[in-house]
Amino acid sequence: MATILPLKATQYEKRGATDEAALETLESLVADDLAAVNQLILQRLDSPVALIPQLARHIIAAGGKRLRPLLTLACARLCGYEGERHHKLAASVEFIHTATLLHDDVVDASYLRRGGPSANATFGNQASVLVGDFLFSRAFQLMVEDGSLDVLRILSNASAIISQGEVMQLVTNNDSTTSEQAYLEVIRAKTAELFAAACRIGAVVAGRPLAEEETLRTYGLNLGIAFQIVDDVLDYAAEQKSLGKAVGDDFREGKMTLPVILAIHRGSEAERTFWRRALNGHQDQRDGDLAHAQELMRRHNAYADSTARARHYGAVARDALGPFPAHPVKDALLDIVDFTVERGF
Amino acid sequence: MATILPLKATQYEKRGATDEAALETLESLVADDLAAVNQLILQRLDSPVALIPQLARHIIAAGGKRLRPLLTLACARLCGYEGERHHKLAASVEFIHTATLLHDDVVDASYLRRGGPSANATFGNQASVLVGDFLFSRAFQLMVEDGSLDVLRILSNASAIISQGEVMQLVTNNDSTTSEQAYLEVIRAKTAELFAAACRIGAVVAGRPLAEEETLRTYGLNLGIAFQIVDDVLDYAAEQKSLGKAVGDDFREGKMTLPVILAIHRGSEAERTFWRRALNGHQDQRDGDLAHAQELMRRHNAYADSTARARHYGAVARDALGPFPAHPVKDALLDIVDFTVERGF
Repeated sequence: MATILPLKATQYEKRGATDEAALETLESLVADDLAAVNQLILQRLDSPVALIPQLARHIIAAGGKRLRPLLTLACARLCGYEGERHHKLAASVEFIHTATLLHDDVVDASYLRRGGPSANATFGNQASVLVGDFLFSRAFQLMVEDGSLDVLRILSNASAIISQGEVMQLVTNNDSTTSEQAYLEVIRAKTAELFAAACRIGAVVAGRPLAEEETLRTYGLNLGIAFQIVDDVLDYAAEQKSLGKAVGDDFREGKMTLPVILAIHRGSEAERTFWRRALNGHQDQRDGDLAHAQELMRRHNAYADSTARARHYGAVARDALGPFPAHPVKDALLDIVDFTVERGF
Repeated sequence: MATILPLKATQYEKRGATDEAALETLESLVADDLAAVNQLILQRLDSPVALIPQLARHIIAAGGKRLRPLLTLACARLCGYEGERHHKLAASVEFIHTATLLHDDVVDASYLRRGGPSANATFGNQASVLVGDFLFSRAFQLMVEDGSLDVLRILSNASAIISQGEVMQLVTNNDSTTSEQAYLEVIRAKTAELFAAACRIGAVVAGRPLAEEETLRTYGLNLGIAFQIVDDVLDYAAEQKSLGKAVGDDFREGKMTLPVILAIHRGSEAERTFWRRALNGHQDQRDGDLAHAQELMRRHNAYADSTARARHYGAVARDALGPFPAHPVKDALLDIVDFTVERGF
C-alpha cells in the first residue's frame, strides 16, 4: 500500500477550490435536467401558506451544491435513461436533504448556513421544524406521483436511517471517548445513506438490473462517507469566508468528528483532559480553546490523516464505477470523487 | 333550525367521562385488530439506537386514545374487509400522528402531555425533533411494505397538509384579530385531514368504490374538526387532572382558538385591549390573566357555543355514515361522534 503523505496544515488549507471544475463539468453534462429539477423544486415549494415558500426558498434557493440531485440525474444518464422521471426523483432527494438541514440547524442551534443566516436564525426554530416536515411530505408526494414502489422503499428506508444516524450523533455529542467506529456509523447513517439512495435510484428509474443498483449504491455510499469526513475537517480547517458557515461550530457543540477523535487518541493525558472539558459544550469553553484545539489537531496530523481516510472511501467509490463503459458522465462522476475529497469549501 | 341551548359553565365542566363507554365499545369491536396494531407499533419502534425506542415508547406507550388507528380499523371492518393489511396502515397513521405530537411539543414548548412530562421535557427538544423524523419515515416504510400507492398518496398528501396547517397556526399565534374562518382552516389542516385519511384508507384497503372512500373521508374530516374544537375548549375548561396536560397552555402560547375568538368578537373594546396584551405571549402576561380570560369566555358563552359549533360538525359526520347498512361498528362510529363532542378529557 502506498504511503499517504500527510499534507502540512498550510498546504491543506490552501487546497480545494481548484477542483471545482469537476462539479461544473458534471453540471454541464446534465444541464437541461438540472434546470428542469430547479424549476420543479421552486414550483413544488409553493403553498398557500406564504411562510412555507419564503422559508424554503431561503434555504433551497440559497444554492448549496445540489450534489445529491445531481447524482441522481447523472447516475440515471449513466444507466442510459432517456426519460424525465428522474427530475421528480431528484427533486425528492433534494427535499429530503433540505428537510434534514432545517432540522439539523434547529437541533444544533446553528445560525449560519451556506454563507448567510440559517433558516432558524431568520424564521425561528418553530417554522424550521414545521417546514422541514412539509418538505419531507412533499418529497413523498413527488415519489408517489412517480409511482415506483422501489424508489419509495429506497428513500423511506434512507430517511429512517438518516434520523437514526442523527440520534446516534446526539448520543455521542460531548462524549470524548467516542470511537472512530462509532463516528463512522453515525456519518454513514446521517449522510452517506442518502448519497447512496440518490445514486441507486438512477439505476432504478432506468430499469437496470440489481447488480447495477448495487454498484451505484456502493459509489454513493462511499462518496458520502468521504464527503462527510471532509466536511468535518473543514469545520475546523477551512477559511471562514469560503466555508459559508461558522468555523468551529462542531467544536462549540462538542460534536465528536474524526479530526477530534484522532487528536484525542494520539494526544497525551493532559491533552485528553483539555478535550474532555472543552468538548463538554460551550458552557465549559474558554477563550482560546478553539485555537488550542486546532493547534492540537495540526500537531497530530489530524486534518491530513482524516483527509487520508476520506481518500480511502473515495478510492472505493471510484472503483465501484469500474464496470461501467466509458462515458463522459462516468469521467465526471470519477472527478467528483476527487473534488469531494480535496475541496476547500 | 333548532335553538341550541348553551350549557352553563358548571354544567359543561361536569360532563364528559360518562360517554367513554362509546370508545370502549368501538375498541371491543376491533379488539383483536387493536392488539395486533399495538404489538406492531411496539415492534416497529425498535431501532439499534436505544434512545429511539425509549423516547418513542415514552409517548406511544403512554397511551392516548389511539383514536386515529382505531378509526382505520373500524372503517375497514365497516367496509367488510377481512384481512390484516389494515394493521400496518393503522400503525402508519399512529406513527404520523405521534411524529406530529413530538414536533408540536417542541414548537409549542409544551412540557406536559397525556398526564406526564412530554418527550421534549424528558429527552430534550433535539431528540424529539429527530425521533419525530424517524417515526415519520417509519410510517412510510410500513406503507411501502403494504404496497398501495393509493394509501401512500392519501397519507403523503395528508402529511403535507398537516405541516402546512401547523405553519398557518404559527402565523396566527398572538394575532388577536384572527378570524373564525382562519381558525377553521388551521384545524382542518392540522387535525382533521389525518382523521379523514385514517377513515378513508379503511375503504381503500377493502377495495371499495370511490364514493365509499368519500363517505368515510367526510365522516373523518368532520369528526376531526369537532375533535379539535372540543380539544381547544378543554384547554381552558377542563379540570387539570382529567386533561393530562396543563390547563391554559394555549393561552400562555397566545394560540388563537375558537373559544378565545368568540370571546374577543363578543367582547367590549376594553376586553379586546386585554386580549391583545394577554395573547401577545407569556412575557406580557400577568398573574390572574388566565382566570380573567376564563371568566370572559364564560360570560360570553364561548365554551358552550364553541361546543355547539363542534356539535354541528359532529352532525355532518353522523350523517355521512347514513348510506352504510346497519352494523355494530356503524353504531359505535356514530357514538364516537357524541363522545368526541361531549367528552371532558
